[in-house]
Amino acid sequence: MNSTIQKLSEFFEKLPGIGPRQARRFVYALLRKEQSFLNDFSALISTLKENVSQCQKCNRFFQSKKHGGVCGLCNSTERKEKVLLVVEKDIDLKNIEKAGFYNGYYFVLGGLVPPISSGLPEEVKMKKLFERVKEEALSKNLDEIILAFSATTEGDSTTRYVEKILEPIIKNRAIKINRLGRGLSTGTELEYSDKDTILHAFKNRQ
Amino acid sequence: MNSTIQKLSEFFEKLPGIGPRQARRFVYALLRKEQSFLNDFSALISTLKENVSQCQKCNRFFQSKKHGGVCGLCNSTERKEKVLLVVEKDIDLKNIEKAGFYNGYYFVLGGLVPPISSGLPEEVKMKKLFERVKEEALSKNLDEIILAFSATTEGDSTTRYVEKILEPIIKNRAIKINRLGRGLSTGTELEYSDKDTILHAFKNRQ
Amino acid sequence: MNSTIQKLSEFFEKLPGIGPRQARRFVYALLRKEQSFLNDFSALISTLKENVSQCQKCNRFFQSKKHGGVCGLCNSTERKEKVLLVVEKDIDLKNIEKAGFYNGYYFVLGGLVPPISSGLPEEVKMKKLFERVKEEALSKNLDEIILAFSATTEGDSTTRYVEKILEPIIKNRAIKINRLGRGLSTGTELEYSDKDTILHAFKNRQ
Amino acid sequence: MNSTIQKLSEFFEKLPGIGPRQARRFVYALLRKEQSFLNDFSALISTLKENVSQCQKCNRFFQSKKHGGVCGLCNSTERKEKVLLVVEKDIDLKNIEKAGFYNGYYFVLGGLVPPISSGLPEEVKMKKLFERVKEEALSKNLDEIILAFSATTEGDSTTRYVEKILEPIIKNRAIKINRLGRGLSTGTELEYSDKDTILHAFKNRQ
Repeated sequence: MNSTIQKLSEFFEKLPGIGPRQARRFVYALLRKEQSFLNDFSALISTLKENVSQCQKCNRFFQSKKHGGVCGLCNSTERKEKVLLVVEKDIDLKNIEKAGFYNGYYFVLGGLVPPISSGLPEEVKMKKLFERVKEEALSKNLDEIILAFSATTEGDSTTRYVEKILEPIIKNRAIKINRLGRGLSTGTELEYSDKDTILHAFKNRQ
Repeated sequence: MNSTIQKLSEFFEKLPGIGPRQARRFVYALLRKEQSFLNDFSALISTLKENVSQCQKCNRFFQSKKHGGVCGLCNSTERKEKVLLVVEKDIDLKNIEKAGFYNGYYFVLGGLVPPISSGLPEEVKMKKLFERVKEEALSKNLDEIILAFSATTEGDSTTRYVEKILEPIIKNRAIKINRLGRGLSTGTELEYSDKDTILHAFKNRQ
Repeated sequence: MNSTIQKLSEFFEKLPGIGPRQARRFVYALLRKEQSFLNDFSALISTLKENVSQCQKCNRFFQSKKHGGVCGLCNSTERKEKVLLVVEKDIDLKNIEKAGFYNGYYFVLGGLVPPISSGLPEEVKMKKLFERVKEEALSKNLDEIILAFSATTEGDSTTRYVEKILEPIIKNRAIKINRLGRGLSTGTELEYSDKDTILHAFKNRQ
Repeated sequence: MNSTIQKLSEFFEKLPGIGPRQARRFVYALLRKEQSFLNDFSALISTLKENVSQCQKCNRFFQSKKHGGVCGLCNSTERKEKVLLVVEKDIDLKNIEKAGFYNGYYFVLGGLVPPISSGLPEEVKMKKLFERVKEEALSKNLDEIILAFSATTEGDSTTRYVEKILEPIIKNRAIKINRLGRGLSTGTELEYSDKDTILHAFKNRQ
């Protein structure tokens, strides 16, 4: 069946975490909505990128009709200037902003580097990160780079990859590269912790 | 934040089973797609109802540019004529068709009747069901009505509601109203079955 | 480590659903109990079978110091005599008794017959069932046998096995063999039901 | 029903994480074991404490027929002497030992201090911890105390309680009290981390 229902289901299946069954439910849910709902939903999707721009400096998406610009965070003069925090994705950045204590700058890498890989995934903007760090280093705007990836195998391989890539830039300069601290996260019980977590929790004791 | 990202997230939250967090992830996933993807997705949503019609007889959605018509199932001359199966939603109908043994007709009610309610939800097409049954009864096209709702509190209250509504039509005619059989469904273990399931499994033993 | 702690853990691991980690937790929990608790717990385990007897007729366990006897259910004169319900295990029997509507007799088979098997598991008391049915049949105490196994592959293969075994006894007598009815069990939604469940729910409609 | 089955079930229900249903399954599982299994199981439970001693120094349980003694870890001359690690329970100690990097001493507190409480739970050996620390402090055997409780509300309130209790002993001596480091534990994703975890992961970056 190559129907509209089927075709629209296949688009929903491209969203993260959605299988054929749920995609199909979405379509039937839409069929029971008013046409005005469908029109508004449709318009927001087709114009999404018109109203959202990708920041030239940090790579994150932000609300702006003008493309090719720089976001409010990167333009802010109130942020402490000399730290660059590298995250995987926009939502990680938002979660850190919500915590409310960080006032340096960001770079959204766009993805992670797989542990075993024949090449860099297209969405991982490693070259752009390299250029950004080089520029900041030359203009002496950088004291520290914080690699803030998830504590997973992919996060770890990305950390190692980025450290290697950035090494030539930072080695003769007073720029530190740090990783987020490992240890017990909220809710972690000692009984169920792995060796690595325990080891880091010891090293980082205070 | 009343941005495009926020607005589109709120549309995704109207889909069944989607919370704010997953809605937000959908929007960021779309931001990383090509504009052509967004255009195609958008077009399918806005034109969904142009290409899908709701059957005048059974209330289900089917692929058709011509609106106000009757679907292939209702028009089929190969289906045994005198049974009407009433289901809650299109996907239930599809699941029964997939099982491949039923060859009577259908009616999609569009929703369930809540156990405690001050009125019928708008999406429940009770009046249309009443008219359909009356018409079939007058033209002597009906031997049996099967109420095929889920074995839940809502399903049960819908069954009772429909039975009461249809009673005046069928009482002086040879039309049976039946409910789907209750019992052990595939995978059910006796140890964990409730009283109701055990009782029905006994009554329906064979 | 072949310590007492280790040895006791291994005993706990023989209980259904208990892995090494939870077994170990049990032992440490016991270490923090009073000695009197340990003594009482220990005594109940070692004397369990002294105080619990396995019924000669139905094979179930029941409270009795006298071994080799017959349980209260089998001895009851208030139960409708001519139905024998065969279940896998004691807890299934208890669950059916709790439902409170059945007043025939029981037989606890002790286990299920695997679908593909080179022999009957030792705990499955097929021979005893055969003898019981033969005896009841000869004394004309049997109108119906109900096979009440779970709606699983193992349950189904056990049903087929028992039917075949009992066929010679019942074929020239007015004894029916029935299976529990299949259909929608409480909570089952039509959208997620498999073909088999839908088919049975249709056949058993009423 | 006050039967043996019921009584034994109630003992199993006293084990951590076991509800009435699983307790009952344990009893029926035991009924199907040989008497020799029950005898061995029973004997290990009643003699558990005969063969296991609680260490006079660290409070942990260890294999020993002689009671009132000191365990191998406390007696070891190969362990670096001047750190005392305080854990909630034996299994936490085992998990840390398994990680294989720590070579100071331990103290098993026996439980946690509830955040809101009218008194210390009996199993929490606070007084014994106080005496142990005082003794080590007087004999100049202590450089550092590490509080290694789970990163939960109970763990945190226990940390605060212990710090307050030990303050008088350490304040005029060169003894540090540290807590395990907080941060990302293995598997933690940034997107789902709470504010506290992110904050600690930042502070402990390296």
